[in-house]
Amino acid sequence: MKFEVTILGSSSATPIYNRNPSAQALNINEKLYLIDCGEGTQQQMLKFDVRASRIEHIFISHLHGDHYLGLVGLLSSLHLNGRKKPLTLYCPELLKEIIDIQLKSSETELQYAVEYRFTDVGKAEVILENQDITVETIPLDHGIGCTGFLFREKKRLRKLIKEKIDEFNVPVQYYPALKKGADYVAPDGRVFENETLTIDSATPKSYVYCSDTLCNEKYFDQISNATLLYHEATFLNNMLERANETHHTTALQAGQIALKTHAKRLLIGHFSARYKTLNELLDEARSVFPDTELAVEGKIFAIE
Amino acid sequence: MKFEVTILGSSSATPIYNRNPSAQALNINEKLYLIDCGEGTQQQMLKFDVRASRIEHIFISHLHGDHYLGLVGLLSSLHLNGRKKPLTLYCPELLKEIIDIQLKSSETELQYAVEYRFTDVGKAEVILENQDITVETIPLDHGIGCTGFLFREKKRLRKLIKEKIDEFNVPVQYYPALKKGADYVAPDGRVFENETLTIDSATPKSYVYCSDTLCNEKYFDQISNATLLYHEATFLNNMLERANETHHTTALQAGQIALKTHAKRLLIGHFSARYKTLNELLDEARSVFPDTELAVEGKIFAIE
Repeated sequence: MKFEVTILGSSSATPIYNRNPSAQALNINEKLYLIDCGEGTQQQMLKFDVRASRIEHIFISHLHGDHYLGLVGLLSSLHLNGRKKPLTLYCPELLKEIIDIQLKSSETELQYAVEYRFTDVGKAEVILENQDITVETIPLDHGIGCTGFLFREKKRLRKLIKEKIDEFNVPVQYYPALKKGADYVAPDGRVFENETLTIDSATPKSYVYCSDTLCNEKYFDQISNATLLYHEATFLNNMLERANETHHTTALQAGQIALKTHAKRLLIGHFSARYKTLNELLDEARSVFPDTELAVEGKIFAIE
Repeated sequence: MKFEVTILGSSSATPIYNRNPSAQALNINEKLYLIDCGEGTQQQMLKFDVRASRIEHIFISHLHGDHYLGLVGLLSSLHLNGRKKPLTLYCPELLKEIIDIQLKSSETELQYAVEYRFTDVGKAEVILENQDITVETIPLDHGIGCTGFLFREKKRLRKLIKEKIDEFNVPVQYYPALKKGADYVAPDGRVFENETLTIDSATPKSYVYCSDTLCNEKYFDQISNATLLYHEATFLNNMLERANETHHTTALQAGQIALKTHAKRLLIGHFSARYKTLNELLDEARSVFPDTELAVEGKIFAIE
């Protein structure tokens, strides 16, 4: 199953040429999920060949402009381009009001339905479940209400061990039950334990998106063992005080979080415009967590 | 006096790679005026070296997203970058509500004052006058309330004819009155008519911005004799019916409007995303008004 993320924006609130505010497109089994939608996300999708028409779910972490100001433009363009399929928005409740007043002002009645699922910063909860994944909110610590998102593959069925199935002549109608973990009782009464006939499927992979947040242990348990952890790293650690004031994380802290929560791999992003180049941020995170990459525009990372 | 316009966006509502929605920066005597502010305008300003901090007046023609969705991001960035100088917004009244709810949602209290001057689509009126210019609204015809803007230089003082001034020994304290058109009465009682001592200053130059509109004679008188006329030209004339339905203008019509209203020069813009190249639109406008240019991203046009 395809499970990969395309980075559409890597910058924080103030603009910088050649970087865009937060947005990422997740492709999970050829379905597209958009996470955050900063100003210019539409253009970034055109640039990096992410087809907006295929998006069915949009997740907005919080209501700082660099995380959602591209949304009304995107919704309008989908409408103008003839979309009929519904779209679900997972976001803070106030965003609906922001969208509604703008659609009203432009006398636009969308040709497709927008369904809302409001996030609650008070608790982690599953906000989406389909045949491929579950998505949970991650309550973060950012001054204004902000949630990250945890995308986790569904646990797959167990796999039959072909040689054993053949050896014990298991009839085909038992396969579905075996895959779900049942034992096999043969016509002569012998019981074959499931573990002798099947093996467990791979551990479900997960993508964790921690947008703007102070480094705070409260969410560490929830994000542990991420296959790929995206964590904001707005500042270098020599600006720790500023990071604390503004409820952001430093690159060093992002590395430490990846280490503590046993992430397999780390992406850092949401870089302050003061950093014209990003090598120092990368080096700092890698000093504690070597398997770190920069989440920069156009890069695609497989979650594997 | 410098009087030039930098084009920041040339596209209409649906996005197209390499073109941006409407925005233009006018530099008049080293003061910056922003006209419309589509999504991504901040990035365009960085790209084309237009210093956002110098903008004092922003004019928004109407509330279709491709003309204003970059505004909240710009206002926030000015705040984050420490702006203290007030800013005046000339716009439809509902825009204030749209801005306020977004500032409230992000818990942002701007460090500078935003003053509003609401436009009235029912009548043309002077909305700004300073030592350099006057700005008038131009009520357009676009389905939803929409005004263009007419920027006109102030009439300059008359110029002294040095030889005559010397010949008739006009004392220096009379110069200011002469420049304003007064006659000179010499100590011996002789009267020198102003016309013998001064010449008229150049005709004031004007820049006319006609954003989205149906081609409609109602605004032709007001925009006549423009030094530089910007007029939208969303479609080729073979899509006239579509232009009429959507309250837009074709390139041919834009040329005809320039001709009828005696513009000195024409810029066309607001091109539909269906046109990957723009030559046909240019050729069509030039077929009736040869002195036409494409208002494309990064181009600077002197108003002279």
